[in-house]
Parts: sequence; C-alpha cells; structure tokens
Amino acid sequence: MPDLLAEARQDLAIANRVLANEGVLDAFGHISMRHPTNPDRYLISRYGAAELMMPADILELTLDSKPVVPTSGRLFSELVIHGAIYQARPDVHSVCHHHAVSVLPYCITGVELVPVMHLGASLGGKVPFWDSRDEFGDTPLVVTKPEEGASLARALGPHWMVLLRRHGATLAGRSLRECVFRSIYTSRNAELQSRAMAIGSISTLSDGEAEMCGSHSLTPRTLSRVWEYWTFRLAKVEATTAGAGAKAPGATKAPGKSPAKASARRSKAAARPAKRAAAVPAGRARKAKRAKKR
Amino acid sequence: MPDLLAEARQDLAIANRVLANEGVLDAFGHISMRHPTNPDRYLISRYGAAELMMPADILELTLDSKPVVPTSGRLFSELVIHGAIYQARPDVHSVCHHHAVSVLPYCITGVELVPVMHLGASLGGKVPFWDSRDEFGDTPLVVTKPEEGASLARALGPHWMVLLRRHGATLAGRSLRECVFRSIYTSRNAELQSRAMAIGSISTLSDGEAEMCGSHSLTPRTLSRVWEYWTFRLAKVEATTAGAGAKAPGATKAPGKSPAKASARRSKAAARPAKRAAAVPAGRARKAKRAKKR
Amino acid sequence: MPDLLAEARQDLAIANRVLANEGVLDAFGHISMRHPTNPDRYLISRYGAAELMMPADILELTLDSKPVVPTSGRLFSELVIHGAIYQARPDVHSVCHHHAVSVLPYCITGVELVPVMHLGASLGGKVPFWDSRDEFGDTPLVVTKPEEGASLARALGPHWMVLLRRHGATLAGRSLRECVFRSIYTSRNAELQSRAMAIGSISTLSDGEAEMCGSHSLTPRTLSRVWEYWTFRLAKVEATTAGAGAKAPGATKAPGKSPAKASARRSKAAARPAKRAAAVPAGRARKAKRAKKR
Amino acid sequence: MPDLLAEARQDLAIANRVLANEGVLDAFGHISMRHPTNPDRYLISRYGAAELMMPADILELTLDSKPVVPTSGRLFSELVIHGAIYQARPDVHSVCHHHAVSVLPYCITGVELVPVMHLGASLGGKVPFWDSRDEFGDTPLVVTKPEEGASLARALGPHWMVLLRRHGATLAGRSLRECVFRSIYTSRNAELQSRAMAIGSISTLSDGEAEMCGSHSLTPRTLSRVWEYWTFRLAKVEATTAGAGAKAPGATKAPGKSPAKASARRSKAAARPAKRAAAVPAGRARKAKRAKKR
Repeated sequence: MPDLLAEARQDLAIANRVLANEGVLDAFGHISMRHPTNPDRYLISRYGAAELMMPADILELTLDSKPVVPTSGRLFSELVIHGAIYQARPDVHSVCHHHAVSVLPYCITGVELVPVMHLGASLGGKVPFWDSRDEFGDTPLVVTKPEEGASLARALGPHWMVLLRRHGATLAGRSLRECVFRSIYTSRNAELQSRAMAIGSISTLSDGEAEMCGSHSLTPRTLSRVWEYWTFRLAKVEATTAGAGAKAPGATKAPGKSPAKASARRSKAAARPAKRAAAVPAGRARKAKRAKKR
Repeated sequence: MPDLLAEARQDLAIANRVLANEGVLDAFGHISMRHPTNPDRYLISRYGAAELMMPADILELTLDSKPVVPTSGRLFSELVIHGAIYQARPDVHSVCHHHAVSVLPYCITGVELVPVMHLGASLGGKVPFWDSRDEFGDTPLVVTKPEEGASLARALGPHWMVLLRRHGATLAGRSLRECVFRSIYTSRNAELQSRAMAIGSISTLSDGEAEMCGSHSLTPRTLSRVWEYWTFRLAKVEATTAGAGAKAPGATKAPGKSPAKASARRSKAAARPAKRAAAVPAGRARKAKRAKKR
Repeated sequence: MPDLLAEARQDLAIANRVLANEGVLDAFGHISMRHPTNPDRYLISRYGAAELMMPADILELTLDSKPVVPTSGRLFSELVIHGAIYQARPDVHSVCHHHAVSVLPYCITGVELVPVMHLGASLGGKVPFWDSRDEFGDTPLVVTKPEEGASLARALGPHWMVLLRRHGATLAGRSLRECVFRSIYTSRNAELQSRAMAIGSISTLSDGEAEMCGSHSLTPRTLSRVWEYWTFRLAKVEATTAGAGAKAPGATKAPGKSPAKASARRSKAAARPAKRAAAVPAGRARKAKRAKKR
Repeated sequence: MPDLLAEARQDLAIANRVLANEGVLDAFGHISMRHPTNPDRYLISRYGAAELMMPADILELTLDSKPVVPTSGRLFSELVIHGAIYQARPDVHSVCHHHAVSVLPYCITGVELVPVMHLGASLGGKVPFWDSRDEFGDTPLVVTKPEEGASLARALGPHWMVLLRRHGATLAGRSLRECVFRSIYTSRNAELQSRAMAIGSISTLSDGEAEMCGSHSLTPRTLSRVWEYWTFRLAKVEATTAGAGAKAPGATKAPGKSPAKASARRSKAAARPAKRAAAVPAGRARKAKRAKKR
C-alpha cells in the first residue's frame, strides 16, 4: 500500500528531526518503526545524523536488518538493536537508540532511573541495565552482531527502556509517536531526577500512581498534543533555515536524481513537516485505539 | 464590553507565548485570567501548548470550568485548578500551572523554596506543598476533579504559590502581569537556590526584606519594565519565524474560517505582540492601582 | 565635543546589548560610563532592559545622579551605585551592576570568588562583599539612597568587583571595554569555580600569576580581540531579527520624533553595531594607553 | 600545489567555525593543521576569534612559528603550542588549544579525565597534566616562549590530549578532522563525567574497550558522518545570518581588497561551507587511509 508507506517515511523522517531538535538524538543515535503493513519489515534512515533525515533517506529492512532493496549507501552499524527487538517483541512498533546527555550519567554509574514526576511514567516501570561485558567481554561498545542484539533484547524483556552501560539507552514503543514520547520524556525525567538528587532526597511515584499516569499520558489525545507542539517547534526552526537556503551535502539519496535537484526537493520538503504531521490517516488512528492500555 | 474582552484575549495569548519563550511553560502547563468585567468567568486557551496560542484560541469559562459557549474543541483536563482558585480567592485575577525544570526538583524532594535574592520576593512568602496522596491516595497526578481543585485551593490558602508533589507548581496573581512575573521570577529564584545550595549554605531574605522587596517589585513600574522586555524578546523570535512562514497545524480555532486563512491571520498577529502589549488601557491601569499593597 | 559624545553614546548602547547577548544583563541591571570629556558627568541608559538600548536612549547625569537635561522619562532607581563610585574613584570610567546567574550564588552564600583560570584575573584581586543589613537593617535590597551608594563604594574600595549580598554584583573598569571584559569574564570564572567545586578541590592563581594574567589580558590588544568577537556575535543576532522588523515598544526616546520613525531608525541602527564598534577614535586609543598598568 | 593548499585553508577555516559552533572555541583558543604537502610548515588563522575565520584569514608558518610571508597582521601569542608539538610529533597533523567550559574544571582541580562512554575513547588513553609553575614559576598562564611550548610538548608525550593547569586543554590529531573529533568528544566526555560524578560512582571503559572504541570511532567512515553533521549545522546557522548581511569588522585580510568587497566575498563564502566540506579530494582520502590504526 504505497500511501501508507509514503506516509510512514514522512513521519519517520519527521520523528528523526523532532528527536534531534529536542536534544535526544545528535550526531549519533537512530529511530526506526515497523513497516505499517508488513510486520516482517522495519523502516530506518540511511547512515547519518537524525537532524538531516528526509523521507527519501528512509530504507526498508528485514527483521534480520538486511536492506530489502540492495543499496550501495551506508547503513548504521547498530541495526541489530532494532531488528532484534522487533523479532522479540511483536507488540513493539518503534525503537529508538540514543546517547542523550541527561540519561548517559545513569548508564555510566548504574544508578537506577525512577519516575519522579507524572510524565516519568514514560519510563514504563522498571528500567533494566545491559552490560556488554557480561556476555561478550571487551567490545567496541557498539551493538553490531545478531547475538549482541538478541542479548540486549533479552535484557529489555517486557519493559520499554533499557540502559546500555557506558554507551546509551534504547527505547521501545507501541507506535512511532509513543516511542518519541518515551524517548523525550524519559530524558526529561532523568534530568529532573539528577537535579532533585542534587538538592535533597527524591520521592518517586507509587506503583499505583505510575500505572495511572501511564494510562493518562500514553493516549492518542496526549500524544497528539505533544506531537503538535514538537512539529510546530521543528517547523519554526526549519522555516527559518530553509528560507535561507541551507543544504546538507549528500543528504538525499533519491535514486537517479542529481544532488542539486535533491537539495531543492529537500528544502521544500523541510518546510512542510507541520502540514504533513497534522494529517492523521484513519488507519493509524484505528491502530492507536487498538493499542493495549497499560 | 467587547473592547476590554478582545484586549484580554490578546494579552492572555501573549502571556502564553511569553511564558513559553521564557522557559516556564512547554508542551504542558497553562495560564488563565479572570474575565476583565465579569468576576464569575475566566479566560483560558484551548487545549494545546502555550507556544502556539493566539487570541482566537482563548475561551471563556464559568468558575465551574464549563465553556460559556459550547465548543467541540478540546479542553485542558486540569481546568479545575484555575476555577477552584478563582472561587476561593476573589483577590486573584490570574492563575498559572507549570512544570518548569528549575522548580520541579522542589516538588520532587519536598525541599522548601525560599527567597534568596530580592526578586525571590515573587514567592510571596511561604510556599506550601500539596500532595494528592493525602486526600486521594493514588491518582494519575493530574488535578481533574472539582474536589481535587478545591483541595489544592485550600493548600494554596492566602499564599501566591503552591508546589504539587511529584507534579509541578501553581501560581496566583492579582493581575495577569503579576502572575507572569511571579511565574518567571519564582523559577529564576528556584534555579539560584539550587545553584547556591551546591556551593555553600544559603542565606535568605529576612521577613522585613521580603516584604519590602515585594512592595518594590510588584508595582506597575516594574511590571511594565519586565513586560516590555519579555514582549520585545518574544517579538524578535516571532518576527524571525513569522517572516519565514512557519505555521502550526490546526492551532487556530476561529469559527468558520479556513485553516489557510487562519494561518495567515496567525502569522500577521504573531508579528504584532509588542505593539499590542505596549497599549495599557485606562481600565487596566486603574485596576492595577487599586490592587492592595502586600 | 559632539563627536566624542555621540561616539560614547553609540559604544555604551552597544555595550548594553553585548552584555545582554552574553547573558550578563537581563531585564534588570545596567552599565554606565564616565562622560568622555567631562569627569563630572556620566552616561547611562534610560530605565529599561539592556537588550533594548540604542544611542538615543542614553542620558547624561551629574555625579549626584541627576539628569543634566530635565526629562520626563523614567530613570533607574539604583543610579546612585554608579554616581557614588564615580565620585569615590577618579580612576574608574565605567560601572556595571548585574544579577548574572553564575555570580548570584556567591552573593547568596558568601562563598568567596577566586580566580581559577587566567581570565579570572578579571576579578582584579580580592572581591569584597557588601551587606545592606550591616548599616541599614531591612531594606528592599535596592541601592537607591546616596548614603547606600556611598556605603557600597566604600566596600568596593580600591577593588574592581563587589558582591551585594542577596542581590547581585557591581563591576568597575578604567574604560568601558575593560568594564565589559571584567563583567563577562568574572561571570565565566564564577561558572567555572562552581563547576570545579562540584568535582574536586579547586586551585587558584597565585598572587604572582594573577598579577601577570591581569597585565596580559587587560591590554588594548586583548580588549580589541574580544570586542570584535562580541560585536560580531551581536551583529549576527541583530541582523537576523532587524531584517524581520522586530520593534520594541516605546524603546526610542529621541525627542520630537514619532514612534514609527524612531522604530525605523532603531532597526537601521541595530544593523550597524559591528561597523560602529570597529572604529576606535584616536582619543580613546590614547586614553587606553594612559590607563595605569596593574 | 596550490589546489591542496587552497583546500586546506578552506577546511581549516571551516574547522575553526565548527569548533566555535559546537562550543569548544570561543573568544579564545585556536586550531591549526600541518601544511598538506610541506611537513615543515603549518597553517593557522590570524589573531582573533574562531567564529570569524575565513580562508583568507589562514596564514602559513614555519615550525618555529614564524610567518612564511611577512605580515603586519596580529598573530596569536601562543603559536608555540602548535609549532612545538609539530616539531616533537611527526605523526601529528593538527593541534587545537581551547578553554572549553566542560573541560576547564579538570584543569582547575587536577581531577583525572577518564573515558566514561564509547566516544570518550577520543581521549586517546591517558590524559596528562602540565603545570607551568613546575618549570617556570609564576607566569601569565599563556604559553608564549619556545621553551614553554617544548615543555608542554614533553608533557603531551605520545598522548593525544594534555590539560594545562588553571588554563585549558590542548589536543592533537593525525588529521584535521580527527583533531576536531577529539576536541569535541573529549569535551562531551568531560561533561558526562561531571554529571555522572554528581549522581554516583563512575565506571570507566576497560583498557580493551577503550582501544576497540578508538579503532571503531576514529575511522574515515565515522569522521565523515560527524563532519557532515557539524558542517550541516554550521551551514544552517551561517545561511540564516549571511542572508541578513551580518559582517564582522576587519575580519577579512585579503591583501589589496577593500573591506566592503572583502565582506561581500565573506558572506558568499560563509554560505558555501557545506558544499566545500563535502568534497573529499583523492589526496586526503588516501592520506586518511594511510593513517596508522591505534
């Protein structure tokens, strides 16, 4: 179904740029989503920084993280993080891997991330750790082999966030918007937890509060509100710079097109994210309604 | 009196965007004001992020937080925070609820917010805590029921700021500008208190100093000075992005207008806040003069 | 000598906006300079935030802080901070009073500011404290009376920075550029001192190092380099927003001109700071050379 | 070979502005590179802030830090930092000296910088300290004399980063891009180390992990990815401000040209960095391949 796939590419490209604009992704890190109609495929961008990604940069991969269409373009070395989680978790439709500054101190110290305010329910309960040393000894601290991805997926278990020691974090979501929400608000929660620990003893949400907060915030209503907010902020930033003609070198990979034409398409496309983001097709709205309540 | 109401909508929309620009409101949080001529009504925006709000987004509600004009648009779930305080406090003409990063650590730890510099007099004296668990046990940490709003208003008492445990803060003011001032400067005070606690033992304003500082800073003269500053900063940001054509999807709710025309009106309106903000109608100046000195 | 005075107004307006752009001045705070040819006068802006100030906003005052030309415009309430220091210190040609976030924690805790890196020599040696309670008991923590200004000047003594407890800081300089340099780099030093104290025991410059660093950095060569840097950064910000037509309400006070024409002049003037700043008239270069070496 | 030299000037000017945009260089600090074809020469900008530098600002010096072409322009006082390291280390092709805020606390306290996440392998193993007091007693804490530069180079030894007590840091790299990578990611590692130390006990990379991480990240593939990211971010910022006509006073030193024409060339040149940066000439790609693997 070409329309749903084109829409998914648009949304995933926007999600990349939203996560960059909100400080979660930077030169490194990536976000993917399961194919909208084929659960044995997932979508992720070509190799590069999230801030640059446009729909033409989105590739389709098998759950073994192989490109469906052969490509000479570069791929992320850590694709197995995504593929392994999609294999292990049929309920997961989006995965994000990042090195956000507010979260990494927990990966470095092993201090537990806990929900300290209502939006911290985005943590989804317990946040396990994964240490590559346990199974693999010394590694270059990148998850590149299928067995490493499978090990990480086992550590994630039924949870929604896992911290990779001395490396970063991986989030899962039942939809792209939920994964973006979890990625941003777990980072905000981590920042607040650190600031609170600096001035006194922290109190956390009770289990009952955490469950109720999760139900309240992980709804289409709330996800729409924050998506409107993030895409508006992104549109403001991109309108300012697109008008001035900023171009990323080599960012577009639309097959057969010249770089100049690709850049022009890129600039025009960059100025449309808010408009695109506002259209919520019937299919996705129905899927969001069906998502199991926590 | 249509002129005063239209002016109030303008000012409240600007206040929304000022609080977003100054880092107090983000995807969540809201600010309201009592109707300029009818004390049994209050004004607040439609559901959404403060950064997006324009005059056409401002709704009129009863003190029971029901829309005066039936609307199919979404409303904030926490309207009772505002309505309950307007009911309990005839002297309050503006209420703000936020999750500002510098204040939340105090909501998380229960550490007391104290005035550490002269502008900290914006705290207004004692800052009580409110914990929804005390009366309501486990909740989703959102104040949505009339009894919860009434409980929060009781905790606020005669004070100007209350901290909601594991949630955020609520400020009150005798005018819209005073509420914005308190919301911004209590956040700055909280930031300074945290930074000071990190390097040594903090000293606070004496009761006499706090009272004198409050009288000095909560005057029309000082409120004008900071309002000029905030609206100028906002105008700069909005002029840059409005010129580039940034549009928020679905932000405007002017009845009967097409989204495209609404967006165009929105952009033109966004470039006028400084001009609007500078006009201080006679009515409001008289009201400010009548406000009781603390 | 009209040319030197016009130039001084230009430079002082730029200094205002540089200090705002570099995060030292915000809604509050102010910077002044002694009249370029009459040591019994000083120049300071009209009442308002530094970010807004243009040459037409600069007023001339006596050392008793009275306007030389009667004006109906508002004046800062803390003018005596400037006048008292110019009276007490014939070697001082510029004074800045601010509430910078990195410095205020020292005003709150009484922890001593010390030079921790070579640019910390901008502290100028010892940094005394002044507490209004000592002589005046409870006050609104604003320095408004001549006796308060004189008391503060006594606390400053022969030094270059004094910290006002629970309030802010005041800097002095032998020239406008030196005062701006000290204001910015003492704030940077304070930030680094706090960050260093958070990770270990700080080491400070020896007396010999501090003296040599001061001589090295407070030279026309270094002051030119940083002035070029700051004015370039300011020009970039102002070019972006001036092109989009941002106007501050009521900011210009050019007598007899309409607000619209004043705004237009303002926008054109805002785009010229870098050009103006680059011109170093012979008189000022000679004055800088004559400044006593520390 | 004029083409390689012109290209080197372009890349070095971009590296200056990238390091300024990423918060490593500010009013002070500098980056250099060895001449692309003559190992007895190196390239560095004229005296001034990195944010301003264009290809016309790049000078050629001998390893004794003397200009190859006599110039009346100002030079950095700390050129010997670069020359001494190029003399001592034939494998080094780029040197950066900075005062980055996240790193300076380690220079102030003597706390050791350690790799806390995989990109911290950019530290290159041990990070030695150098204290000018040890050999030279009290100095103005600037490295200006050949014997001081030689002493610093001895402290750097075979390592890639050295911390100058109470001053700043110096990085070395086998290429310009590697030096920029190390400068940025060691600063990010320092920030994370400080944040982690604030919440718990830090864990560091094992020696095996550090070696593997270094091999993984200091490759042409990874260096290309981050260079694309940084130059894109820089292009966005410069496109926004160049369109608005911001000009730096006296920044261009192209001999014989008028300042107005130089400014116009400057603005056009500023809008081209992304395009320039994307072209990787065969010569440099071959050099990158030959760089010894750690």
